Amino acid sequence: MGSISMAAGRPVQVYLDLLSQPCRAVYILLTCTKIPHKVHAVALRKGEHRTPEFTNMNLMQKVPVLVDSGFILTESDAILKYLATQYDVPEHWYPRQPQQRARVDEYTAWHHTNTRAHAAKVFILEVLLPRHMGSAVDKVALNNALSNLKNTLDKLETMFLRRQPFLCGDDITVADLLAICELMQPLGAGRDILKDHPQLQRWRSRVQSAVGKSFDEAHAVLYALRDRRQAKM
Amino acid sequence: MGSISMAAGRPVQVYLDLLSQPCRAVYILLTCTKIPHKVHAVALRKGEHRTPEFTNMNLMQKVPVLVDSGFILTESDAILKYLATQYDVPEHWYPRQPQQRARVDEYTAWHHTNTRAHAAKVFILEVLLPRHMGSAVDKVALNNALSNLKNTLDKLETMFLRRQPFLCGDDITVADLLAICELMQPLGAGRDILKDHPQLQRWRSRVQSAVGKSFDEAHAVLYALRDRRQAKM
Repeated sequence: MGSISMAAGRPVQVYLDLLSQPCRAVYILLTCTKIPHKVHAVALRKGEHRTPEFTNMNLMQKVPVLVDSGFILTESDAILKYLATQYDVPEHWYPRQPQQRARVDEYTAWHHTNTRAHAAKVFILEVLLPRHMGSAVDKVALNNALSNLKNTLDKLETMFLRRQPFLCGDDITVADLLAICELMQPLGAGRDILKDHPQLQRWRSRVQSAVGKSFDEAHAVLYALRDRRQAKM
Repeated sequence: MGSISMAAGRPVQVYLDLLSQPCRAVYILLTCTKIPHKVHAVALRKGEHRTPEFTNMNLMQKVPVLVDSGFILTESDAILKYLATQYDVPEHWYPRQPQQRARVDEYTAWHHTNTRAHAAKVFILEVLLPRHMGSAVDKVALNNALSNLKNTLDKLETMFLRRQPFLCGDDITVADLLAICELMQPLGAGRDILKDHPQLQRWRSRVQSAVGKSFDEAHAVLYALRDRRQAKM
């Protein structure tokens, strides 16, 4: 569908904050597939997503945003699939075969209210709320969130990874990027939520190997957050 | 990609409860595009989604489920897109042009934690919880849910429908089906959540016209629920 010449003609513009999980997924796909792109940093903690300029581009005031020759697209799920079809990237990222593609769409549909909702909640309770409110961590809410998250991790292992190395089959897809970036997020508080899930740990290693150094580049800001918090303790 | 001969060869099997919003979206696409199919009713209120047979097909114990010559697919979002690509239906349902398609993917990604989450919450609070718990409606929680829902309805009007008759462009897509079926749900308690949103009302009329009698067929069980509740009052 797409062609490398289109990509080479004018790099896609992406507006990202790498402390945002879905932004990291977009960043990893762009860098590891070498799609020509230009990153515009949008610092959420400084409210840069609420400026008139940014709001004019995305009324939802959310990152990531992609701009491709005037075409503005929001929602990481849609952005990843658009990039994978419009640009000349290896087909495994978003297979064209209808049943293989449906597996990716099936995971990404499930993702929003499962992996994303529950992993993000842990990070919000341990990092964002205490920082913004200046309050202690709400232990009851955190235990509840961890319990919901465990349920999601179990499903990832027993359903999606039951008989295959990646979430949607034998090779890595955009679904794995969305998932891993959410599951890394609680590391910002020093919490490795995969420590009791060896199957997910092996999957994480496979994802890291598949995307190479773009993984650590994307997560550098999260690692730095973890290190700063640990230094304070 | 697909062909009508494949569809004609063996009808797709779908497992649905028409009181479930995403099931109705799948039902409407199947019937109004005349994809050969066989509906298997799964009564959620009788726990038929938790039987060993059903669980064996879908470990998540959720409807809808599609079975196409042995290929089992869950998640309405993925099912709708699969049907639209695999079967010979008018292209407007899920356009092939990458930017038009990306608009559909953008809405459906947004849908899960917005339209679906907030409209479903109102129905849960007004119908499901009181029925299951035998308790009165939690007015505080309901008002909170209605406030969140209003925010979502405003976004649907001011963002998605701002300059176009359907959510993703000039013609109906699977995104409109997912959205309308969620927004109809609170009608089960006699609540028309679009009554103060004339732009969304006009969109609803356009969707109804576009899908014809399959709309009322899909919603018959919801209308019956509303009528039974009103008769009791």
